[in-house]
Amino acid sequence: MAPGHRSLGGGCAPVFRLLLSAWALCLAFVTQPAVAEDGYDLWLRYQPLAAEQRAPYTPATAQLVMPTPSQTLAVARDELLRGLNGLLSRTPASVEQVSTAGAILVGTPRSNPQIAQLQLGLQVLSPGGYVIRRRNVGGHSTLVVAANDDVGVLYGVFHFLRLLQTQQPLQAFDVSESSRIQLRMLNHWDNLDRTVERGYSGESLWDWHKLPDYLDPRYTDYARANASLGINATVLTNVNANALVLTPTYVHKAAALAEVFRPYGIRVFLTARFSAPVEIGGLKTADPADPAVQQWWKDKAAEIYKIIPDFGGLLVKANSEGQPGPQDYGRTHADGANMLADAVKPFGGIVIWRAFVYSHEQPDDRAKQAYDEFVPFDGKFRENVLVQVKNGAIDFQPREPFHPLFGAMPKTPLAMEFQITKEYLGFATHLVYLGTFWEEVLRADTYRPRKGSTVAKILDGSAHNYARTAIAGVANIGSDRNWSGSHFDQANWYAFGRLAWNPMLSSKAIAEEWVRMTFSNDPKFVERTVAIMMKSHEAVVDYMTPLGLHHLMGRGHHYGPGPWVEGGPRADWTSVYFHRADENGIGFGRTKTGSNAVAQYAPPVAAEFGDVKRVPEKFLLWFHHLPWDHRTRSGRILWDELVYRYTRGVETVREMGAEWQSLTPCIDAERHAQVAAFLKIQKDEAKWWRDASIAYFQTFSKRPVPAGFAPPEHSLDYYKSLEFPYTPGHY
Amino acid sequence: MAPGHRSLGGGCAPVFRLLLSAWALCLAFVTQPAVAEDGYDLWLRYQPLAAEQRAPYTPATAQLVMPTPSQTLAVARDELLRGLNGLLSRTPASVEQVSTAGAILVGTPRSNPQIAQLQLGLQVLSPGGYVIRRRNVGGHSTLVVAANDDVGVLYGVFHFLRLLQTQQPLQAFDVSESSRIQLRMLNHWDNLDRTVERGYSGESLWDWHKLPDYLDPRYTDYARANASLGINATVLTNVNANALVLTPTYVHKAAALAEVFRPYGIRVFLTARFSAPVEIGGLKTADPADPAVQQWWKDKAAEIYKIIPDFGGLLVKANSEGQPGPQDYGRTHADGANMLADAVKPFGGIVIWRAFVYSHEQPDDRAKQAYDEFVPFDGKFRENVLVQVKNGAIDFQPREPFHPLFGAMPKTPLAMEFQITKEYLGFATHLVYLGTFWEEVLRADTYRPRKGSTVAKILDGSAHNYARTAIAGVANIGSDRNWSGSHFDQANWYAFGRLAWNPMLSSKAIAEEWVRMTFSNDPKFVERTVAIMMKSHEAVVDYMTPLGLHHLMGRGHHYGPGPWVEGGPRADWTSVYFHRADENGIGFGRTKTGSNAVAQYAPPVAAEFGDVKRVPEKFLLWFHHLPWDHRTRSGRILWDELVYRYTRGVETVREMGAEWQSLTPCIDAERHAQVAAFLKIQKDEAKWWRDASIAYFQTFSKRPVPAGFAPPEHSLDYYKSLEFPYTPGHY
Repeated sequence: MAPGHRSLGGGCAPVFRLLLSAWALCLAFVTQPAVAEDGYDLWLRYQPLAAEQRAPYTPATAQLVMPTPSQTLAVARDELLRGLNGLLSRTPASVEQVSTAGAILVGTPRSNPQIAQLQLGLQVLSPGGYVIRRRNVGGHSTLVVAANDDVGVLYGVFHFLRLLQTQQPLQAFDVSESSRIQLRMLNHWDNLDRTVERGYSGESLWDWHKLPDYLDPRYTDYARANASLGINATVLTNVNANALVLTPTYVHKAAALAEVFRPYGIRVFLTARFSAPVEIGGLKTADPADPAVQQWWKDKAAEIYKIIPDFGGLLVKANSEGQPGPQDYGRTHADGANMLADAVKPFGGIVIWRAFVYSHEQPDDRAKQAYDEFVPFDGKFRENVLVQVKNGAIDFQPREPFHPLFGAMPKTPLAMEFQITKEYLGFATHLVYLGTFWEEVLRADTYRPRKGSTVAKILDGSAHNYARTAIAGVANIGSDRNWSGSHFDQANWYAFGRLAWNPMLSSKAIAEEWVRMTFSNDPKFVERTVAIMMKSHEAVVDYMTPLGLHHLMGRGHHYGPGPWVEGGPRADWTSVYFHRADENGIGFGRTKTGSNAVAQYAPPVAAEFGDVKRVPEKFLLWFHHLPWDHRTRSGRILWDELVYRYTRGVETVREMGAEWQSLTPCIDAERHAQVAAFLKIQKDEAKWWRDASIAYFQTFSKRPVPAGFAPPEHSLDYYKSLEFPYTPGHY
Repeated sequence: MAPGHRSLGGGCAPVFRLLLSAWALCLAFVTQPAVAEDGYDLWLRYQPLAAEQRAPYTPATAQLVMPTPSQTLAVARDELLRGLNGLLSRTPASVEQVSTAGAILVGTPRSNPQIAQLQLGLQVLSPGGYVIRRRNVGGHSTLVVAANDDVGVLYGVFHFLRLLQTQQPLQAFDVSESSRIQLRMLNHWDNLDRTVERGYSGESLWDWHKLPDYLDPRYTDYARANASLGINATVLTNVNANALVLTPTYVHKAAALAEVFRPYGIRVFLTARFSAPVEIGGLKTADPADPAVQQWWKDKAAEIYKIIPDFGGLLVKANSEGQPGPQDYGRTHADGANMLADAVKPFGGIVIWRAFVYSHEQPDDRAKQAYDEFVPFDGKFRENVLVQVKNGAIDFQPREPFHPLFGAMPKTPLAMEFQITKEYLGFATHLVYLGTFWEEVLRADTYRPRKGSTVAKILDGSAHNYARTAIAGVANIGSDRNWSGSHFDQANWYAFGRLAWNPMLSSKAIAEEWVRMTFSNDPKFVERTVAIMMKSHEAVVDYMTPLGLHHLMGRGHHYGPGPWVEGGPRADWTSVYFHRADENGIGFGRTKTGSNAVAQYAPPVAAEFGDVKRVPEKFLLWFHHLPWDHRTRSGRILWDELVYRYTRGVETVREMGAEWQSLTPCIDAERHAQVAAFLKIQKDEAKWWRDASIAYFQTFSKRPVPAGFAPPEHSLDYYKSLEFPYTPGHY
């Protein structure tokens, strides 16, 4: 596809300046030969620092005092030595007591007697929390990494290495960190045949056929990467579950993975197919009220815990998109979840029940359904049940307002489900940093119970005193060499982990950390790459679904634009259901005159979203059906504003590509080239989205493309004719 | 599964001696730190030689005279420098003329004027052939790598590097090499959704979704590896073909791959679905006699060649296992092949028509079918058609006698189809070196037209003066980091390529080359590892299908033993059809008193195979149905001999595992550990095959397991109850 015709603003001139100055820019900062890198090492590269960067750290890392009475402490020590060896080309002397200046003292008060004697502030830490301190120990300047538990030590070691990797001054080695959320988990939508639903990075990491006998070294590196972020749980299998994973054969395979992950503080969960008692148990029913079914699950839990003593529990998708569930037997979500909760309770297990449901009936507005189905059961779930809620009420769209359930279930711990894999955001090839979007959601104010009760405060339990807290990310990890399908998608894994640890973090600060560790500490490179990341999410929203439009992608595979999708088994699986465009206007009316979904929010939020004058323009057509000549805040009419935003999205991607080109000399050629090739694909696909969307909506608006903007390159029929039978991730 | 109870011979004692002496054995030979290696570099590792090993080569590699007026010469030069840099830590000075002792002079008479002036013996070379010589050039001792064509230079460079990698003395740098077979090709059974039929090494390498825009650097490394062996053609897609690959969208994707492969002398082929004119052409028929169908294929060929000017041609599986074909319209294989041949002929293309067919009717003996269907058409095919024949008449069984078609079609060029991927040989985890098996087939004497007309001589065209010659291997290559799923399966890719270049080579010499380049030149390591490889094929035959038994694997997925498989759509898709065991005996009678399949061979061969006294015992039950108490050559009765051989297979695998353990210090830990883990799996699965097979056949023989041999560990019902719904490669 040829590039669009219009350049917005003066974008190009600065880009050319960038290109001209690039060599001068970066050469001074390239501190080591740009060796070929393939992304396998993620943000744990530990490449040697230049001599002058190493200088401040060298005197501070002369000896190491770190007894390792546990597997977790042993892997923490290995990681510390690996990092110091890589970054500083140095292996500190291992000693039993601090005996010289420049010692590193690591452990818990139990593992390391010298730590027990220091005042480090350990008493305020939550489980897994840690401190990093500079202390005088026996007259010697010492760096201390300490925690109350072994896994906290491991997390502290990774933080310590991060300070080195990002070249923080020694004064910054003064940290006290506690996670705000107890359970920080990845959800793998991985099938037993190694396909990955909505996976864009190769096959499933889990080589079920060779498990439990062969343990791929990648399993360990996966655990290291997660532990470096504080991720402490992983659900191995798809929520569209296969009952076979609960048979002993597969539980033994899962146990082998649990064994690898255990030293890294990661517990294994599995997904439970609600009809498993029938499918693998030989029962005639899976009715949760049936004593035989209850007993079957109790026996199954006992069997699993015998094989995996620290098994985390079960994640369940029930009565949604064709999955079986308690409603098949006239029971409620609470009935189903509580039966499973009772089964795992004796072993300390939990049940995570997904709120992403929709009934067989045609809803007047699918956005309302989860709220309607779950709020009545607030307080009816067992204490070891969490309800896991997607960030928005539809389905991981490029942008959604926060889900109205957050804040609406004060007696039921709600967990967040973010999607790290980019099902609706350009698969592996589009550079879209999700940190900004997640930050937007986490900082949204639910006004429940009061102003300031952000989604983050619902999740960390502070708003409603939840006893259990959790956050989940649908993983983007596969067998691709770079794990995530693209180098920049590693940033989304990273950002998820960091926000799971502390949902109050700034997405920009996270991006900067990640860029420094993953690519380079070169200040200009960092500044410009972070800038690319920070505008990337807004760009994809612009070229796919501007102004609050949503659910406009190709049917089934979700690849590319499909605003014309209609018909089929369910209205709410089409695009026309969501955009509601006709000659008079466009948008889903969710105010009182429409579905009144706004009423599910707290009154101040409902008032804002429901008022066309006050609603943030990014959500305009999410809540309001408006005429094509509606005047937007820019002064343009709605149609013109849509064309403007579609075009702006394409233009931003073009700028991102040019800016990335300007950074060519700053990093290794192999990773730079892949990113550049993907940005070219993104540019072409952004234009495809823009052109196809404009061509389609123009059939309703019957208005010309505004002056100065290029018309779509092809006819609407052309765009509708495109077929993609073998897109990845469509299983 | 617990280990078997009986040890054959004195296997264990030497193994323990090995274990004790291992450190002493190898430490002296470990010439560089055993860094972590993951197998990605295959046999092109170019790890630094130790100083004393480098010494003889250093004075001989001081300068390089190698103009690069073509892409192929440029990649040859890159490879040479990469190799010298890695092996010798040396970059020779690039100069225009030999001007000092120790020059390397590389090129063709056209690319390099100094080469044109030397007498090198180039006139005897076939296309792609090359010489490596030591010459005095202008008074300076010089190493010359020369050919008549650029790709010959590339092949010569790889051979030159192989001499260094295997540490050959400089006297050995005197080589004249010409391939005996024109077309040396890989067949990928890769689907457009990236699954691989019978693939055990991850997904397809071809990332169709990102093609043609993104060119994974692996595509280049794939081309390098193939060119290093002389492989010059690749069929990208599965013979169970999808017509979509012939649409412009996919041809453009294939063209991007062809572009990467072109400098390496590799041409791209695609598979043609015979019904494509209907499926993607909109015609009502694919009848090869229909002029519209003929025209459709002509237009299609023109379209493909416009996009890929050096497109190789089409590979076709027709009227076999449900694939469409000319017989659907009452036409013959020749009719179908010739129509396609006429379409590609104007562009220099060829058609490769597979002889692996079976009709819808129940055959009296499937082994006879290809011969019966194809021999009548000898001489009826266009000159640009080759018929591709599997090595044996059934289907890539652990061992088969050579296919009776070889020698039987003097007027039709026959190509060999070997299977590199181990569909019936333990998938990725069993260590089975196939070089010995292929050598056995290639050296088999067809007696057609006369004694000494081995299969190799049929293939290289010398027996029947074929104008075209070809050999194909069904690839075992996928997205796994080590390409082939296991390190030792790389040896099968390697051996296939080497035998394709020269089918007269010794499989043992190939194994030794491969071990030296892939692992280590340590003499003891080489000797012992080659010994493991050389006995590995006999071992798998023993534990799966001894004495000529065949087709006894699990249904569909082909994983593990399934001698009890019966029923279903076709008798010849069952095990009982092939083993024919009953109370009276076992084996498929293919002599005159049976199906008389032996009559398809030349009379001397038929006489040998048909005579129970003369038939090689390895083919005993392939050709003869014999009573359980038949006396075998060991003196044991048939039943006891079967138990003995099953047990011997397990025992050999146990020895292989122990021997590999003894080599622990000789190579890097990562690759050693994976091989060791897989040998453990192989040992368990070998025992499973043995025990299940004995348990099953015992129900017919009604004889006890002979004294000293362990009975099966589990009941027959247990083995029959095992299910494997998600085995890899079953698509």
